[in-house]
Amino acid sequence: MFEQLDHVGIVVHNIDETLKTYCEQLGFQLLEQVEIPEQKVVAAFLDGGNVKLEIISPTDTESGTARYLANRGEGTHHICFEVDDIYAALAELTAQGVRLIDEQPRQGVHGLVAFVHPKATHGMMIELLQKTH
Amino acid sequence: MFEQLDHVGIVVHNIDETLKTYCEQLGFQLLEQVEIPEQKVVAAFLDGGNVKLEIISPTDTESGTARYLANRGEGTHHICFEVDDIYAALAELTAQGVRLIDEQPRQGVHGLVAFVHPKATHGMMIELLQKTH
Repeated sequence: MFEQLDHVGIVVHNIDETLKTYCEQLGFQLLEQVEIPEQKVVAAFLDGGNVKLEIISPTDTESGTARYLANRGEGTHHICFEVDDIYAALAELTAQGVRLIDEQPRQGVHGLVAFVHPKATHGMMIELLQKTH
Repeated sequence: MFEQLDHVGIVVHNIDETLKTYCEQLGFQLLEQVEIPEQKVVAAFLDGGNVKLEIISPTDTESGTARYLANRGEGTHHICFEVDDIYAALAELTAQGVRLIDEQPRQGVHGLVAFVHPKATHGMMIELLQKTH
């Protein structure tokens, strides 16, 4: 079901400072920076070779991402796997009794996305992505 | 410097229970399970397509991994990038002022490894791996 890892999401306080670290000190290349108003975050995608790194920073204090950052601090937020058919994947996970955050996919930056609940995966937040081609 | 992502490491309390979740419910395939006595952990590698997932569980209560689990709970522990030359990579990171956990590489399961300090990367623990071929 999980075809390949698309990206690892990292949540941080200050995206500009983090990009300076990741691009200037660690040598990653910035691919794209976007604002996602409906999720109240800014996100930057870095080239990690066979995957991307998504640096995410909340733009308010109320969103799920802002609360995650306040509770757990900076660090890994989720890993995102590409799937061929997100509706089939969600149906299969539901049939397996896996708890989901999103029972229906929603529109993300690069396609349809849905999150599996971290309680179902021993603390790992897994995002599913069906890319828009 | 970071060629490609080799694996995402996830720390958990009970490796058998977690493998049941990841293999039976989520559909990942187990590649290999190993005990790493010098790190006081057991580790299982799962096929994630273009990357692997490494499920890690401490075998005592004193190791760094055990303390991490006690402090932060289950979830992502590190991400591991393959590098061509780990000595050159560590020298480059040091020249850039990046704080390291391991200034010298040590022998890991699949080659020479070294960890970058999460304080240098906004909370993300990055492992470097120069594979033994």
